[in-house]
Amino acid sequence: MEKRSICLNCDMGESFGAWKMGNDESVMPHIHMANIACGFHASDPQVMNETIKLAIKHDVQIGAHPSYPDLQGFGRRSMVMSPDEITNMLIYQIGAIKGLADSHNKDLSYVKPHGALYNDMLKDLSIFESVIDAVSSFGLPLMTLAVADTQPYLYIADRYDVPLLFEAFADRSYLANGFLAPRGQDKAVLTNHEDILNQVLQISRYGKVRTIDGFSIALEADTICVHGDNQEGVAMIKQIRSLLDKESQST
Amino acid sequence: MEKRSICLNCDMGESFGAWKMGNDESVMPHIHMANIACGFHASDPQVMNETIKLAIKHDVQIGAHPSYPDLQGFGRRSMVMSPDEITNMLIYQIGAIKGLADSHNKDLSYVKPHGALYNDMLKDLSIFESVIDAVSSFGLPLMTLAVADTQPYLYIADRYDVPLLFEAFADRSYLANGFLAPRGQDKAVLTNHEDILNQVLQISRYGKVRTIDGFSIALEADTICVHGDNQEGVAMIKQIRSLLDKESQST
Amino acid sequence: MEKRSICLNCDMGESFGAWKMGNDESVMPHIHMANIACGFHASDPQVMNETIKLAIKHDVQIGAHPSYPDLQGFGRRSMVMSPDEITNMLIYQIGAIKGLADSHNKDLSYVKPHGALYNDMLKDLSIFESVIDAVSSFGLPLMTLAVADTQPYLYIADRYDVPLLFEAFADRSYLANGFLAPRGQDKAVLTNHEDILNQVLQISRYGKVRTIDGFSIALEADTICVHGDNQEGVAMIKQIRSLLDKESQST
Amino acid sequence: MEKRSICLNCDMGESFGAWKMGNDESVMPHIHMANIACGFHASDPQVMNETIKLAIKHDVQIGAHPSYPDLQGFGRRSMVMSPDEITNMLIYQIGAIKGLADSHNKDLSYVKPHGALYNDMLKDLSIFESVIDAVSSFGLPLMTLAVADTQPYLYIADRYDVPLLFEAFADRSYLANGFLAPRGQDKAVLTNHEDILNQVLQISRYGKVRTIDGFSIALEADTICVHGDNQEGVAMIKQIRSLLDKESQST
Repeated sequence: MEKRSICLNCDMGESFGAWKMGNDESVMPHIHMANIACGFHASDPQVMNETIKLAIKHDVQIGAHPSYPDLQGFGRRSMVMSPDEITNMLIYQIGAIKGLADSHNKDLSYVKPHGALYNDMLKDLSIFESVIDAVSSFGLPLMTLAVADTQPYLYIADRYDVPLLFEAFADRSYLANGFLAPRGQDKAVLTNHEDILNQVLQISRYGKVRTIDGFSIALEADTICVHGDNQEGVAMIKQIRSLLDKESQST
Repeated sequence: MEKRSICLNCDMGESFGAWKMGNDESVMPHIHMANIACGFHASDPQVMNETIKLAIKHDVQIGAHPSYPDLQGFGRRSMVMSPDEITNMLIYQIGAIKGLADSHNKDLSYVKPHGALYNDMLKDLSIFESVIDAVSSFGLPLMTLAVADTQPYLYIADRYDVPLLFEAFADRSYLANGFLAPRGQDKAVLTNHEDILNQVLQISRYGKVRTIDGFSIALEADTICVHGDNQEGVAMIKQIRSLLDKESQST
Repeated sequence: MEKRSICLNCDMGESFGAWKMGNDESVMPHIHMANIACGFHASDPQVMNETIKLAIKHDVQIGAHPSYPDLQGFGRRSMVMSPDEITNMLIYQIGAIKGLADSHNKDLSYVKPHGALYNDMLKDLSIFESVIDAVSSFGLPLMTLAVADTQPYLYIADRYDVPLLFEAFADRSYLANGFLAPRGQDKAVLTNHEDILNQVLQISRYGKVRTIDGFSIALEADTICVHGDNQEGVAMIKQIRSLLDKESQST
Repeated sequence: MEKRSICLNCDMGESFGAWKMGNDESVMPHIHMANIACGFHASDPQVMNETIKLAIKHDVQIGAHPSYPDLQGFGRRSMVMSPDEITNMLIYQIGAIKGLADSHNKDLSYVKPHGALYNDMLKDLSIFESVIDAVSSFGLPLMTLAVADTQPYLYIADRYDVPLLFEAFADRSYLANGFLAPRGQDKAVLTNHEDILNQVLQISRYGKVRTIDGFSIALEADTICVHGDNQEGVAMIKQIRSLLDKESQST
């Protein structure tokens, strides 16, 4: 039986100018994929350059993490944009970070939209198609949410020859359809370390996840998203990584 | 005797959002090289995309036309930035437009800094080096001013393996050192059509230009910069192009 | 019988940096109220200052014309913002233009939100309340759409002691509820001069307007919004002004 | 003999969107004057509003702390702007924060330019005049550096009827002309607590300061600028405040 090997991805490079955010130096050694902000919701050319160098140092894949243009709102506020406005602003951002990565002879490995854009593309297939359109011109895969029914997304992605990378979340509760329980909802975010490690194990070993209502659903994930916002988060990432490494070694 | 063949370059794609600037549709058919704004002093991803499509339609080379980050000031206000701030923000902009060009399978052909940054790099070799550093990672030539003594620029460009494209101006008066007479100075800008055509002829046929003091100096230019800001400018461009075409056909 | 006296309002000061928009010099002499952009969807401190001076010269009332923060989209793209984000960004913009007006000893007379924010406040009363909250701290009236049922808006405005100025449109077709027919719809915009002048007459003389379906509905307007985007628009404004002046003189 | 009573001022409200900076909650109780960023180098309408509320809670005076428009560079990069560009962008910022202060019935008490603009106005009297011009229309005092020869500044300020508030620095070394020793220079920043407290005492009790070369010069300061960037800074502020309180009580 083939082993499922699951990568850890984490949002990185979210500082901006004089403002620091996150713990990139502590987190980078423990992840496989760095989602790097492209200057529209966070970061600037300086921060992007430093983050790419840090990823190279730890041999971590880099992904473009583009967003709606909204620094003040950190890309968390939906904006109404036309399909080609979305496509072109994404090509702009992906091109920008690819330029910086190229300057270090480092490949860009994937694209993962940020914040409100990520949520909007999941809810609205026309937005999803605008995103896919942008990603297709770089010949890269798109990272998106591993939900129960991925057919509508795969259908569009296939037409543009864009591979999809499906991600699950280590510390978020799931609905029956594989979407994340809204943050407002009770127990939407797992805080107990054991619960988080257990969810990671379910996803990586069995391709399953327990929903917020207590059921078990199938969820095929290529990667698990983790957060290193604070010291507790960083410690959690280390434990998850160590768990995944043990899993992939055992037979 | 080998013919000197001189290209026309023009700043293009300087609209922004709802604001229109320039006469790109009228100018594009008559130029060889379009310097396309990258969103920092003008333009946005939509305008960049449209301008690239227009250049493709008329088989015009496209160049990145990056700038200091200053939409309100149209990139005409100098800013104090550190060397790697300049390099990284240029890679960001060049990467962004390259992404959009790639999405149309169109090559980016060169880089020409805009406005205050263009002037600053000519005056300050450390800024010139920051620019060259950025351009070098794309393997493109840099377009810069054809002055009397190009050695200091060539010396830096050679170290980074960056070819230089030298440009002269059709409608600007020259100082003895080959720099442009400051706009404030009397007769700094040529307005008489005959004078402009004559200057183009001097540059293209003899590699010379008359200075504002009436002397003739040598000036080796690969390209001549023209402006299509208004209908008169567009008409002038057509005449210059027709003159250059005639020159290159005669033996 | 008391005469209804109706003012003309027009969006002004929509240039930005090097980009010119509109025909402010031609329009200003013919309007009563200038809705002046505040730098978030258009304009900058320079343009705001010049526009205020122009309004003073022609003794025109000035109103703050604030917007979502979206220069590229000209404030026409809805953004999801929390109630106090809306309130505070409006106070910021209104305060900014009040500062510039005060520097010329000119009073600010009213506030009229722009574009997507204007539409959103009409559709969502919680957004309307956020706007009213901002306006209330300046002791100014809010300009909003004269619809058939103004009660829900008046109810909120009264609680904050904010007077409402109701505006009608000279060149837009109306739905039965007094809202504007969406631009996409057939005949949503009146283009025939006679139709426009007739609509102005209906509004100013009888407090009525014909809907797109051919019915007549009551519409109590304090002011009529006009557009001077092009020369034809400017000519139309002159005719409308002349019509209104004749109306107010006749008994 | 009249007692000199010296206030403490500190830069506050320098967070931006999702990015936190400074320790406003810890610092505010110990200062007299809060220099509040206005959104051009830091802050946004939300942060400004919260900072104003915090100042009100601790009965601290609020000052506008405007800047060049440069979020990425935190207003520390000089920009070349024309005199009225400076004046108008300052009126814009001061008006914006005054609007927010007014919404809480709190007066704005003074203006202190930030970063590169502060340095530029000290070096270039034409910039100083542009600043004074802006401040004059609000009838507020300008906070500026207490140097040895304040005559050139007073001369301009008097013409515009703008009072000057002179500030000294608790932890910076001085040159013989009363300007601050450049940060690059050895011992430009005092780090020893005793040295800092001693400098505060010299300024507040004797109107004198020791220069970096060991001389004593006269320096008439109305206020002392302190920094609460980290926990050590906050502790230092408490000690300085306590020292000043003791001074003003003793006779």
